[in-house]
Parts: sequence; C-alpha cells; structure tokens
Amino acid sequence: MPHETALSRLAALLGDRLVNSQADRRLHGQNESHYPEALPEAVAYPESTQEVSEILTICHETGCPVTACGAGSSLEGQHLPLQGGISLDMGRMNKVRAISAEDLNCTVQPGLTRQTLNTALRDTGLFFPVDPGADATLGGMAATRASGTTAVRYGTMRDAVLALEAVMADGTVIRTGSRARKSSTGYDLTHLLVGSEGTLGIITELTLRLQGQPEAISAATCHFDSIEDAVNCVILTIQSGLPMARIELLDHMMVRGFNLHAGAGLPEKPHLFLEFHGSAASVAEQAESFAGIAAEFGADGWQSATRPEDRTALWRMRHNAHYASAALRKGGRVWATDICVPISQLAEGVLQAQCDAERLGLSCTIVGHVGDGNFHAGLSVDPDDPAEMARAAEFSHALGETALRLGGTVSGEHGIGIGKQGFMAAEHGPALTYMRAIKQAFDPNGILNPGKMLPDGPA
Amino acid sequence: MPHETALSRLAALLGDRLVNSQADRRLHGQNESHYPEALPEAVAYPESTQEVSEILTICHETGCPVTACGAGSSLEGQHLPLQGGISLDMGRMNKVRAISAEDLNCTVQPGLTRQTLNTALRDTGLFFPVDPGADATLGGMAATRASGTTAVRYGTMRDAVLALEAVMADGTVIRTGSRARKSSTGYDLTHLLVGSEGTLGIITELTLRLQGQPEAISAATCHFDSIEDAVNCVILTIQSGLPMARIELLDHMMVRGFNLHAGAGLPEKPHLFLEFHGSAASVAEQAESFAGIAAEFGADGWQSATRPEDRTALWRMRHNAHYASAALRKGGRVWATDICVPISQLAEGVLQAQCDAERLGLSCTIVGHVGDGNFHAGLSVDPDDPAEMARAAEFSHALGETALRLGGTVSGEHGIGIGKQGFMAAEHGPALTYMRAIKQAFDPNGILNPGKMLPDGPA
Repeated sequence: MPHETALSRLAALLGDRLVNSQADRRLHGQNESHYPEALPEAVAYPESTQEVSEILTICHETGCPVTACGAGSSLEGQHLPLQGGISLDMGRMNKVRAISAEDLNCTVQPGLTRQTLNTALRDTGLFFPVDPGADATLGGMAATRASGTTAVRYGTMRDAVLALEAVMADGTVIRTGSRARKSSTGYDLTHLLVGSEGTLGIITELTLRLQGQPEAISAATCHFDSIEDAVNCVILTIQSGLPMARIELLDHMMVRGFNLHAGAGLPEKPHLFLEFHGSAASVAEQAESFAGIAAEFGADGWQSATRPEDRTALWRMRHNAHYASAALRKGGRVWATDICVPISQLAEGVLQAQCDAERLGLSCTIVGHVGDGNFHAGLSVDPDDPAEMARAAEFSHALGETALRLGGTVSGEHGIGIGKQGFMAAEHGPALTYMRAIKQAFDPNGILNPGKMLPDGPA
Repeated sequence: MPHETALSRLAALLGDRLVNSQADRRLHGQNESHYPEALPEAVAYPESTQEVSEILTICHETGCPVTACGAGSSLEGQHLPLQGGISLDMGRMNKVRAISAEDLNCTVQPGLTRQTLNTALRDTGLFFPVDPGADATLGGMAATRASGTTAVRYGTMRDAVLALEAVMADGTVIRTGSRARKSSTGYDLTHLLVGSEGTLGIITELTLRLQGQPEAISAATCHFDSIEDAVNCVILTIQSGLPMARIELLDHMMVRGFNLHAGAGLPEKPHLFLEFHGSAASVAEQAESFAGIAAEFGADGWQSATRPEDRTALWRMRHNAHYASAALRKGGRVWATDICVPISQLAEGVLQAQCDAERLGLSCTIVGHVGDGNFHAGLSVDPDDPAEMARAAEFSHALGETALRLGGTVSGEHGIGIGKQGFMAAEHGPALTYMRAIKQAFDPNGILNPGKMLPDGPA
C-alpha cells in the first residue's frame, strides 16, 4: 500500500467511513466513458467541511492523492484516481442548506444532485436550470464547469455559481463570492475553482442562482434536409434575439440511435429539438417566430409537445443520447467527446466530424447544444479491439484539431480530465504556464487529483 | 527620478510616445472621485501588443511600476500611479479588430470606448450592452469588472468578456478563452484577469459578446411612498421572471439632485426608472405586468418615454447622477461609493445608509441598480474640510460593514482600488492568502499597479 501512513491516520479519523473493500474501490474506479478502471486505495466518506479539512491536512502532510467523486457521471475520467490514494466520495454531504426565494438563490452541499435540488424547489416557484442530462451532483457540475441543453438561455455552471466554500490542499477552508448577485472585489476565485476539476481545492458548499419557473413551456421538433440548413436556422434564430430555452441539433445517425433505442419513429434526417419558456403569450409568439425562421430553411415534420408528459418523454429521449449511441452497435461502449466552436463555424465542424468518422469506419452520432456552438460526437466502440480504439483516438484528436482550427475550444462542457490533456498546450499556449503557476501555488505537494488537466511537461 | 534606468530604456523604445511633461503627468494623476493627485514619472503611449510587451519587459527587469489607464473614469482610484513609475495610457490602442455578426461577438483593443463600439455596431443589428454611465474604455471596464444599469438583463463585464489577450508582468503575451461561447478547458484565466484592476496583467485585446438590438424599447418612471415599497416591488418583479432591461432605484435626495442639476421637476420621493426590451408585443406585455405589480405597492406618477429622444434624456439624466449629487452643494466634490447585497436585504441597506448619512450630517444621494441589489451612495463633500472628510470616511466604512453584515460585498461595480483595501480581509478572510499567492506567482517583482487591491500585510 503506497500511502500506508495516510490511510492509517485517515482510518483513525473516519472509522468505518474509510472503506477499502474491493467492491467500493471498484465502484469508484469505474467511469461512463471508455477509460480503463483506476482504483483508489480506499474510499473516504466525509460528512462535514471540518472532516474534509482534516482529511486534506493528513493527505497534504503525507503526499497522499485525493480525488473527489460525486455521481461519477463525468465523461473525461475526472473522478478516476489515476495515482491511487483516496477517492473522496462527497455523497453524504448532500443537504440543502438554505433556499432564499426572495434572492433567487440557494446554498447546498456538493453531494446534492440537481434533480433532488429541483424536487426541493418545486413549491418555491423557482428552479435550478443547468441540465447536463445525467443526475450529476452539484459539486461535480461546478468542478467540471458543466452545462447542457438549457445553457443557451440560462448559462452554464460558470453563470450559476455565486459563491463557494472550498477546502484547499493543506486543509485551509476558504469562502469565495457572496450571496450578492455581483461583486468587483478582488480576484475571482469562485470562477477559478469552477472548472478546476478538483485540482485546486475541494468544493464543500455552493451558493447557486435560481430562476423563476416559467409560466408556460412548450416543446417541438422538426427536421431539415441538411445540417447546413439546420445550423443556419439556429444562427438566424439566435441573432434575432429569440430567447430559446433549448435548441438541440441531432444528426441522422443520432436519430437512428433514438429510433433503435427508444422507438422514436423519426425520419433519419437532421433534427432540431426545441423548447420555449415564458408567459403563455410569449411562448406562443416565440414558437411562431421560430417557425417563420425555420420555414426559410425548409423545416418540415413539425411535432409539438405541450403536455408535460410529452415534453418529459422528449427530453428523456434526448438525455439518453449516450445509450442511444451505444444502441447503434451490439455490445458497443460509448467514447463520448465534445467540442465548442463559434456558431458560424458549427456546420463546418459537424460536417468535418461526420467525414472523419466515415473515413475511419466508425459508428458516430452527433448531438449538440447548437445555440452555444457545442456538439458531442458519440462513438460506439469495442474496447477490446485495439485497432478500433486507435481509430477512435485518431477521430477524437482530429475533432480537437477541428475545434482549434475553427477558433473554438476542445471541450465545451466535458472538460479535460484524462482525455484532452494533450490539447492543453495547443489550446492555451503560453497561458498554460500561468495555470501551472496557480496549481503550484495552491497545491505545492500535488495531492489534488494528480495526473488530470495539466499535462506533464516543463512548467 | 527613482526609475531613471527604466525611463531611459523606455524613451529609447518609444521616442516621443514617452512623455514626462507636467501637463500629461497631471492629467494621468487625476481622478473622478475624492482621491488626492498621484503623478506618474512619465506617461507611455503604446500602439501595439508587441510594444506593451517590450515596455513590461523593461519595467519587470528594472522594478518600475506600471499603472494602466483608460478613460480615467474609475471611481476607486484604480488608474492612479500611487508609487510613481509609468502610466500606461492605452488610448492609442483603440481599434475594432473584428465584428462577427453571425457569432454575436467582436474583438477590440482595450482603448476603445463603449460608445465608440456601439457606433461601429449600429448597422449590424447588434449592440454592446454593458453601460456603466461613463464612456469608459472597454479595457478599463474589463479590468474593473464594470457593470451598470443594464446588468440586470445582460450581465456584467464578467458575462460579456469571452476571451482576452494580455501581457503579463514579464512581457509574456498570453491568450485566454476563445470565440466559442463556453469552454471547460483549464483554469478560467479570463475571469481571473477580469476585475484584477491591472495588478495581474495588462489587457491588450478583448473578445466581447454582443446582443441583438431589441425590436422595441420603452422606458417609464414612477414613484413610491417609501424605499421599502419600491424595493419590494422590484423583488416581486424579478421573482416573477420579468426580463427587465433596466430597473433603477433613486432615493428622494437623488431626485432632489436631478431637480437641481437637470430641472427634472420630479416629486422628491423614491423613484424607479425602468426600461423594457423585446418585440413590440412583449414590451407592451412586460410594461403591463410591471404596472400590475407596482400597483400593489402604491406606485404613482407614471411617466412613459417611448420616443428615442425622451429615453435618451431620461438615461442621460440618470448617467449624470454623479454631477447631480455634486449639485446638492455648491462647490462640492463627490465621494462615490457602492455596495451590493442580496436583494432581500436591499431596503435595509439603503435605509441604513440614509440613517448613517443623517447621523454624520452628510449630503448623500442613493441610486442603485436595484435588480442586482447594487446601490451607490454619493456624498457631496469639501475635500478641504478634514473633519467632513473624516465623517465621509466613517460613512464609507459603515456602508462596507453594512454590506458584509447583510451577506453582500463591499463593491458591486466600483472595485477595490485604493478605497476599499481595508475591507479585503474582512470580506475574503483566508481566501485573501490565495489571492496574494496568485499575485506573487504572476508578478513576483510587484510592478503591476502596486499599492492597489491587495492590502499590505502578511502574505
């Protein structure tokens, strides 16, 4: 056991909340994507900020790696303890601390999931809008700067997080931000921690902005003859200032996946899935304005979903894109990746991805938060076929290069984790030196999620 | 001359664009607020990123302070070169680099002002929404994390800045972010630089999000019997999800200032100034919904401004609040300060400020971006009366303490600069250590705007 001293001190602190059973270790060594298993030496289940602080003090003093884990739904292996040490399972710190309906915010612990929060908010007239699909924990969502289908209207976790409490590498507890909606005081540590993937500190409390539940919601789907038509329709929609709540692009392969996985019965053409929020009158006006724009690009096959159960079915199908991608191939495992480009470059990005997948003989679905220029490519692969895995890696690399060539970023919402470290230098250039300087200053012993985000190499 | 070596090397680099005339030095040693003059040893006028890089390399090597300066409209003395060295006047780097209407963004140099940008955007159907009143430079607005009257709808500079180019202390040029609307790759250096007041790097290029020009705009004013009524009306408005474009609170003293300065002829009661953006139908619906809410709180004295010239007159008056505050007292100079609190605490914050001003015998106006919980207190003071200046300082200190007591921040948009350093420890606690660590890592020789933001004291 490489970190025996740390583990014995942690066991003394946590008792039976430090677990080293094979079952628990394997559970924390799994992931939803294609990364190989990576087991922690033990799993710690803290119940308070104070305990997290004591755990980090021990790990800092002994050089024991600490990898935080929420729901385990990250897609770039962020929660995999690559260098052993402990998994810090935040699942027991899952309370709603406070809801302030007047201020449209709430304070929660990091292990709370977004759906549980929304259940707690149901009677307040408010909701938490960020929706990455999976029922992720809010701490994990902040740590990976998650977003999802509603970001086009309500923003990402960057916009949703007002304030944080975090435990830093040596056990120091800090608070960043406040319950006020904005501030100009000092360096923005809140947004330095958001998206830092557990490499700079462990989030132990979050204050989140909430939104008023819309008075009316309606959803619709339609299809286009080409990706260009669908994308150009979206560009004009966004330019015209329509406050779309969701606007999702699906390519013909993704639609085929939905047909196989969910019996969707949709024509295998590029689709847009839409949602409108507002007053009853405004929702009707928005839908009408959108239909007018879409007609210019030959939209067809309109289907509406105004009843809540129909909308739920629609978005459940969309959220199961990961599994629908897998359905395209028996026994396939999904290699999920994403990029984000300026919206004017989106059609080119999607077409390049389709072309690369075809060239490499890969089964690939494309689905995207097209209002943000963000799309996902889901490859259905056989992890036991090294040649196919190599082709998938080649595809993923080409996709990242496409993002940079088109003026975008190698990930809109999945993050860096393990899979995209190779792009950090290409995307950030000399700025990478300053990221390393922050990591060095905040975590000099390198215990926080080592092996992630910042690639090895000269500082 | 304390930095003779630096200045002679800079003169060799810049020729007649390094100026040490008394007139130029005094111009760069002034400010709009109450801080005493602080003169640079010389003023540098760079024309390119490359030149900024060469200037910083020289200053880094020689330990010469560098204080960047835009329009000089900051209110906490951010651009005053407290420790001499050079003022880096960014005014010649004022070009629009690119406008991408399809992507709703543009790339500009830091010396461009927001009004000049909006003139350049006029025919694109887009506009840049952040409006702090003054025709500030965009680099200065980013450096101070500015916001203003439209932040309630369109966000602050934090939301508007997509990407930056910056020159770091040793002359290294970095790029942060991209033209994509979101990203999950690496530490968010963009938002670390936004609001850093020139202490971590010099912004040399900005990519900014733009918004579609609304199809219709209408404005209105109304008054209330009490601050509580006005604030409660705003709280209910925000909760109900009305997408207010502007919603400004003015106390009776501010209204008196407008009456004196601009002949407004308004009853001296708490007012709200409002603006609605959207389609013609939506603007009408919003105004009607707001009026319904306002009626519950006894709103009266409705005046509408739908013609562009009437709206311009209304907001020009609002933007001249600084001078209207001065008008309350012959020869008075304005001591401007701001705080931001959770909106539920806003009435208490405003009443406390009014009460403190009365107790201290000070002439004080209050005007606020009330949808954000942010308000300004404008004291009209005589800088040559030390006793009054001491009372103003006492007021300002009490106001900051009120902000922290109510769960807010000591500045919503003016920043720290010189005036609020004394609150950094109280507001940020142990997080201040991590801010100092970043400063030390990024600017080890302490040349960037020394004496600002981070207070002296143990690291």
